[in-house]
Amino acid sequence: MLETTISAIRPLDEAAMAAARELHGRLTKPAGSLGLLEDLSVRLAGLAGACPPPVPEPAAVAIFAGDHGVHAQGVSPWPQEVTAQMIGNFLAGGAVVNAFARQAGASVTVVDVGVANPLPVPEAPGAVDASVPRLVAASVRRGTRDLTVTAALTRDEALAAVSTGIRIADELIDAGAGILLTGDMGIGNTTPAAALIAAFTGVDALDSTGRGTGIDDPTYAHKVAVVRAALARHTPDPADPLGVLAAVGGLEHAALAGLILGAAARRTPVLLDGVIAVSAALAAAAFAPDAVGAMVAGHRSAEPGATVALRHLGLDPLIDLGLRLGEGTGALLALPVVTGAVRVLHDVATFDSAGVAEK
Amino acid sequence: MLETTISAIRPLDEAAMAAARELHGRLTKPAGSLGLLEDLSVRLAGLAGACPPPVPEPAAVAIFAGDHGVHAQGVSPWPQEVTAQMIGNFLAGGAVVNAFARQAGASVTVVDVGVANPLPVPEAPGAVDASVPRLVAASVRRGTRDLTVTAALTRDEALAAVSTGIRIADELIDAGAGILLTGDMGIGNTTPAAALIAAFTGVDALDSTGRGTGIDDPTYAHKVAVVRAALARHTPDPADPLGVLAAVGGLEHAALAGLILGAAARRTPVLLDGVIAVSAALAAAAFAPDAVGAMVAGHRSAEPGATVALRHLGLDPLIDLGLRLGEGTGALLALPVVTGAVRVLHDVATFDSAGVAEK
Repeated sequence: MLETTISAIRPLDEAAMAAARELHGRLTKPAGSLGLLEDLSVRLAGLAGACPPPVPEPAAVAIFAGDHGVHAQGVSPWPQEVTAQMIGNFLAGGAVVNAFARQAGASVTVVDVGVANPLPVPEAPGAVDASVPRLVAASVRRGTRDLTVTAALTRDEALAAVSTGIRIADELIDAGAGILLTGDMGIGNTTPAAALIAAFTGVDALDSTGRGTGIDDPTYAHKVAVVRAALARHTPDPADPLGVLAAVGGLEHAALAGLILGAAARRTPVLLDGVIAVSAALAAAAFAPDAVGAMVAGHRSAEPGATVALRHLGLDPLIDLGLRLGEGTGALLALPVVTGAVRVLHDVATFDSAGVAEK
Repeated sequence: MLETTISAIRPLDEAAMAAARELHGRLTKPAGSLGLLEDLSVRLAGLAGACPPPVPEPAAVAIFAGDHGVHAQGVSPWPQEVTAQMIGNFLAGGAVVNAFARQAGASVTVVDVGVANPLPVPEAPGAVDASVPRLVAASVRRGTRDLTVTAALTRDEALAAVSTGIRIADELIDAGAGILLTGDMGIGNTTPAAALIAAFTGVDALDSTGRGTGIDDPTYAHKVAVVRAALARHTPDPADPLGVLAAVGGLEHAALAGLILGAAARRTPVLLDGVIAVSAALAAAAFAPDAVGAMVAGHRSAEPGATVALRHLGLDPLIDLGLRLGEGTGALLALPVVTGAVRVLHDVATFDSAGVAEK
């Protein structure tokens, strides 16, 4: 499934991009006056292979949840059971991601790919486009192993999570989603994200590691040491993304890489949230460099590793508000910018049609 | 009317702000993890004097349109009749502001405060909340005088435009608007905006003047010289905002200052668009310093003067995408961030209510 998906990922369509650039020049606005929105709409035309590209709606948020063996090293002040408890909160509609998803009209799908503790609710299939969040049970194992001691996952486990991500992308797109948004939940998951970012970009652990949900100076120094030790132990090879995900990743990171690849294979845009998403995007780009064409960076997380990863991917984030919550919240805030960029190509009159003089 | 409005503008309510900060600490998210959105929601609680503050909807965009005598100096490559033609485009729903307003569910009101050429359409009163844009005829004069030769407006003319802005704010809020968005249209209007920003902040014309809709190097140098000459001729006194608006402003700038004051007096947030809006916001703040409490900076325009003005006002923009279109487009893109920030205070569960453990 992974190989088939990778082989389906193609470069952006140059003819559609040229058509979008030409159309922008005829619309009733000064050339270039929509800044990055123009570039974004041109890229989405290239992804769709059509000008204008379809308006990217409805939107579907996929929140992949997992736990982390490295939590035992004291990298987070939050107890591990919060991962399972927050899934209950997502399904009850009480989290920030729910508030933003309701506002944006986006569906929410929570996928358990590796939560350690029992979930507070049974699997609820639901309809993909329903306003009620649904849960998909796809646990590979109940949390990763401690990456300071051994590989977090076997290659087979990492592959299973990647495949789940691809499957969820296919299901959401088959059900009509025009854009996928990445979400994540996992106490301790900024530690594997920092390790992934260092492994794929080559920066030092100090530059890829942040304070996550908020940790004090001693905990931060310890977290950097943990990331550095994991990299030294496993010496992950960035040319082997499955190996990197297995050695120092997480199940939600692997599944997000799969979601991104699945979206790219279907030529559907995928709006990235924060540092977990962009660490997974690095893995997806290592599997298939052309997958970057399907990625839209929703926001610049306050985590320093996110900026390192975005620079490596060549992506400009749409929003920069110091968010560091995850869940998909930053992607949801950026969604209207993406749909707005595309609507311009559909809805705006040309100088000719509106009878407006040019300069 | 201006004096009554100014006297109604009060500081933010400290008790409501404290309540919003306290509530943020109990919601199911790490403290501070929503970054600037938390600060924004706290300010809006202070503005409303209530926690949570009302969700700021529906939204109403007010586009003030005017022409400029300084156009004769060759500061813009666009013919002056484009101002009137674009009003036709707004009313036909064909401009970018219309595309974004439809997406955001915002009404569009176009106010002619000083267009030079005949409008292509008659006044159409319409309903404020209708999806059809409406036109309000409130022309003070058919364009300003050339500010390089004489004062752009008399004090009475400037006051008439400010009063129109206040009246429009009142009408929109009376009709139910929960937030006002500033829009503008006026070929040549970045020149008076640059002069206003220099006058109110004290920066040199070189730092307040930009390339507007896109001008070449010689035209840019000429534009800077025009702004500098206007400031040297009129030596506007920043402590006399009506005098500044009359000497070097525009009718849409004056009306926008009035709209902002009107919104602040009604304790209703006003979402600022680009450089025209923030130049008017400087005037509003000079009339009533507490009016800044009602202002939300929608985006950072590509115009350098916008950044100068935002810094002077102490406002952080929500979006930074290199936009330089005006019309209200940047404010509309930022609107979901504002409503999202407030929805968090309404919709998100607390740790207690959701049964989620704290760190």
